[in-house]
Amino acid sequence: MLASIITVGTEILVGSILNTHAEYISNKLNDLGVHVNYHISVRDNLEEMEDVIKEQLKKVDIIFLCGGLGPTADDVTKEALANVIDRKIILDEYQHQKLLSRFEQSNRKMTENNLKQAMVIQDATLLDNKWGVAPGECIEYKNKKIFLLPGPPKELRPMVDEYLTDYIIDENEVVIRSLNVAGLGESVVEDRIRKLNLETENISINTFAKFYDTEVKIIAEGHDRNSLIEQVDYIANKLYEAFGSKVYSEGNISLNQTLVDLLKERNIKISFSESITGGLLASQITSISGASNVLSESYITYSNETKSKILGVKPETLESFGAVSRETAYEMAKGLKQISNADICVSTTGEAGPNPSEKEVGLCYICYYFGEDNYKIVENKFRGSRNDIQKRVCDTAILDLILMLRG
Amino acid sequence: MLASIITVGTEILVGSILNTHAEYISNKLNDLGVHVNYHISVRDNLEEMEDVIKEQLKKVDIIFLCGGLGPTADDVTKEALANVIDRKIILDEYQHQKLLSRFEQSNRKMTENNLKQAMVIQDATLLDNKWGVAPGECIEYKNKKIFLLPGPPKELRPMVDEYLTDYIIDENEVVIRSLNVAGLGESVVEDRIRKLNLETENISINTFAKFYDTEVKIIAEGHDRNSLIEQVDYIANKLYEAFGSKVYSEGNISLNQTLVDLLKERNIKISFSESITGGLLASQITSISGASNVLSESYITYSNETKSKILGVKPETLESFGAVSRETAYEMAKGLKQISNADICVSTTGEAGPNPSEKEVGLCYICYYFGEDNYKIVENKFRGSRNDIQKRVCDTAILDLILMLRG
Repeated sequence: MLASIITVGTEILVGSILNTHAEYISNKLNDLGVHVNYHISVRDNLEEMEDVIKEQLKKVDIIFLCGGLGPTADDVTKEALANVIDRKIILDEYQHQKLLSRFEQSNRKMTENNLKQAMVIQDATLLDNKWGVAPGECIEYKNKKIFLLPGPPKELRPMVDEYLTDYIIDENEVVIRSLNVAGLGESVVEDRIRKLNLETENISINTFAKFYDTEVKIIAEGHDRNSLIEQVDYIANKLYEAFGSKVYSEGNISLNQTLVDLLKERNIKISFSESITGGLLASQITSISGASNVLSESYITYSNETKSKILGVKPETLESFGAVSRETAYEMAKGLKQISNADICVSTTGEAGPNPSEKEVGLCYICYYFGEDNYKIVENKFRGSRNDIQKRVCDTAILDLILMLRG
Repeated sequence: MLASIITVGTEILVGSILNTHAEYISNKLNDLGVHVNYHISVRDNLEEMEDVIKEQLKKVDIIFLCGGLGPTADDVTKEALANVIDRKIILDEYQHQKLLSRFEQSNRKMTENNLKQAMVIQDATLLDNKWGVAPGECIEYKNKKIFLLPGPPKELRPMVDEYLTDYIIDENEVVIRSLNVAGLGESVVEDRIRKLNLETENISINTFAKFYDTEVKIIAEGHDRNSLIEQVDYIANKLYEAFGSKVYSEGNISLNQTLVDLLKERNIKISFSESITGGLLASQITSISGASNVLSESYITYSNETKSKILGVKPETLESFGAVSRETAYEMAKGLKQISNADICVSTTGEAGPNPSEKEVGLCYICYYFGEDNYKIVENKFRGSRNDIQKRVCDTAILDLILMLRG
């Protein structure tokens, strides 16, 4: 089955909003075995929209129309569709009552305008919107399906999650497995996969870049579920062989989550003394719910003085080797161990740029300190903007920690 | 003038890559007075691409074709365009030499495939690609302009920045001014602007949401530059009246940058004791180049014990009022003042969720401590995910600091 995703809204065409709907829905459709042929964004303009709907009805089996279901005069998506497929727009009594009670509860007066949100296309199946006002609609027309979905992401996304699988049933079985790979750029990951030549007619392997890590998604379509599972597992094993420990998790588990889970599981406390990353590393841990089980204190020692004052880094060390050095990284982590109750102490120091203060931009040192007989200092050189470099140092540290803990 | 932006690449249609080109180019075109009618994404499929190009040539004056200029068999953008406008694809000698010397320098052998990147559409004006291999092209065809641009953002973006203004000249003058508003949601900002009724036929006001702050861009088009400037200034003044000190900067200056600049200018040092924000607040400061002038140390005190150990928060205070309280926020900031050399000490404490530990999720306290006779404690309640709440606390603190410093 083929699909098109049409996003409606002048704000997209002026570049005021990034169109994330097309990506979100495409992703979900792929998981259902539906192929997306076109993404289109149109303005809130009746004729242009009609035009596009007509064109797409000739090309695909399923059309998504996202946005333009609100109460204002701008919102003409329903009208455009009704005109093209020659259906009436009628008042839906259930939606009307829902709207009335919504206004009653919030003590506001309902205006004529608002009634528009209780108007639906004749013979549409309504998709109840539990996250907002305008209902979604699914319309069958000449063996095709047209979905109307509200524009706000916090309404559209849960509606897609809730309704898509029930309304789009492909004759094929679909089996999916996704591996998260860290520590390699997406293009490197993609290239290696292509060279393995694993794709077949019914199996696609797509990569999704997520800053420093890459999701590799294996999607198999066919009729025999067990055989699909076997094929997918075969490919997954090949990928594990190719990427080794760089596959840090499967499915929906992020790099940060993986580390926090590991630390929690083993009852290990962590602490950071950050220079180049300036708090970002700790914030990646504290962004995860339950971080308080694994982190209780952390330090940002940005200047030489505070490296000495807080962590006891020797002024001679800073003098002889500089702040951006193996020696300073080591003393920062060791000093942290002495003042904190953490089991693992991690320090970061480096040149984030854009203007170097003592060494080349992108050079950094991370020290992982478990104790005087168990520590590791890693030198890295990264490219990119200041923020890219800072983020790379953090993700490198988190990946290294995962690998070290897993041994 | 009307334009369409066509992005080419199967990876976009499977939801593997977010289409940011359309937003980027739209934004630039708007600044030049060009109206964008359509954003379209198509797969690397010759017929589908030809189809879309034909359709768009009927509708607009300028077409952007982004991506599909690489060396692989998938890359058929040039072929599709050449077929539609009936032109030849020819070898460009300059590009050929450039390619040869590129391979020579990197000691690699050039394959037949790579030659594709020296092939260009007959009579095209080449746009030199200083950021990658495939050149851009600008083609004049029946009073229309078609731009071919390479797909990688790190090539496309600088090419758009460098060449667009020279190749797209509208008969109109365009005057732009943009105001950055913080502390209000984008929908609130938009709503207030609509109610002011400031837009005229030649002046548009667009809002661009940037998480917690919103850019409000005034664009005026017309013939008389001085009159346009007057009109834009009039509107800017009305917006300053409407939003007051919430307009924290103009143009390309972020919230973080504004605060760092202010602190630098006044030679003020800042430090944080973070609980709910867990390092994110410090990292927003250290994300800005030159942060070392204004921040030398900062602390993450995530547990009750470390609040007492590092900052001297009294156990009785934590016992009686809880960690999420005005009292704890105050002692965290005051304690920080005693151990640091900072002029302003800022503490954050609250419930980030999703599961509350002692108070309601979203409740937070920020204390801004200059000295015992000059401090301020603010209570806020935010909604959203854990990460939304953490980010909101940070942006609120930074905006408050800007406003306090500006007095």
